[in-house]
Amino acid sequence: MSIKVRKLKVNFKTLEEFKKFKEYGIQELSMLEDLEANIVEDDSDSPFYGIYFGDKLVARMSLYEVDSKSDRYFYPPQDYLELWKLEVLPDYQGKGFGKALVQFAQNFGLPIKTNPRVNSSEFWNKMGFTSVNYEVDRDRGENPLVWYPEGVKPQNH
Amino acid sequence: MSIKVRKLKVNFKTLEEFKKFKEYGIQELSMLEDLEANIVEDDSDSPFYGIYFGDKLVARMSLYEVDSKSDRYFYPPQDYLELWKLEVLPDYQGKGFGKALVQFAQNFGLPIKTNPRVNSSEFWNKMGFTSVNYEVDRDRGENPLVWYPEGVKPQNH
Repeated sequence: MSIKVRKLKVNFKTLEEFKKFKEYGIQELSMLEDLEANIVEDDSDSPFYGIYFGDKLVARMSLYEVDSKSDRYFYPPQDYLELWKLEVLPDYQGKGFGKALVQFAQNFGLPIKTNPRVNSSEFWNKMGFTSVNYEVDRDRGENPLVWYPEGVKPQNH
Repeated sequence: MSIKVRKLKVNFKTLEEFKKFKEYGIQELSMLEDLEANIVEDDSDSPFYGIYFGDKLVARMSLYEVDSKSDRYFYPPQDYLELWKLEVLPDYQGKGFGKALVQFAQNFGLPIKTNPRVNSSEFWNKMGFTSVNYEVDRDRGENPLVWYPEGVKPQNH
């Protein structure tokens, strides 16, 4: 089976599918309000990528490119990807959908930072992610994990 | 009963008590390593505040003062407090310990930002916290709640 990762469009169908995911919050509600108030157009690009099984959205993640000026994680300082809300619907777990999404992100060739949910460290380790050296003013209550492409190092060590 | 909030000291007793809390992660592990490697002194100040019941730590939170230069939440831009890891041990919930910690933070008179755990919105609403207008580059996967002292307004509206 070939797994295809697609950039998700902001429309009422996508936003209805988002409600099935556990990590549904202010980001999704804000997209819905913007669409209803015509602040964004139907089928605008969203920061989400997803995998469909048939016509059902079964996995998703959000990706955002952070500018090198704000980079406090990587050396040399550079543009990197922040990844969040990686989630696979319960009935579709263990089929490689999460792995496909992360590999899709890694294929951009940029370093990646994520703040994973608890109990997911085994998955992230398998995908090559490691812990950072904690800094209170940078990391606050987060447990950041990062992925370094070749030639990239931590900023603090 | 009078509830007393105390600034917590970094020592092996405190770090042992932290293990009972659900939100135990890289922050706590890093404090333990720093203490073991003599990078911090025994009984240094920590960013944590807590409430003892007898000699048992039963509630805690972490507080960090963010500099006005980094303020993207409040208008006029100003120093504010970031609050995280507010947690009361299960047997001690419903006794006002969480409320006492948040009121302690509010007494500094600075605006407060927090990124609460799911299903806690009723508590935060009661404490006067409200949602922000979501901005993807600022908030990413967070669901920030903020508290405005008198005269302080949101930065985006």
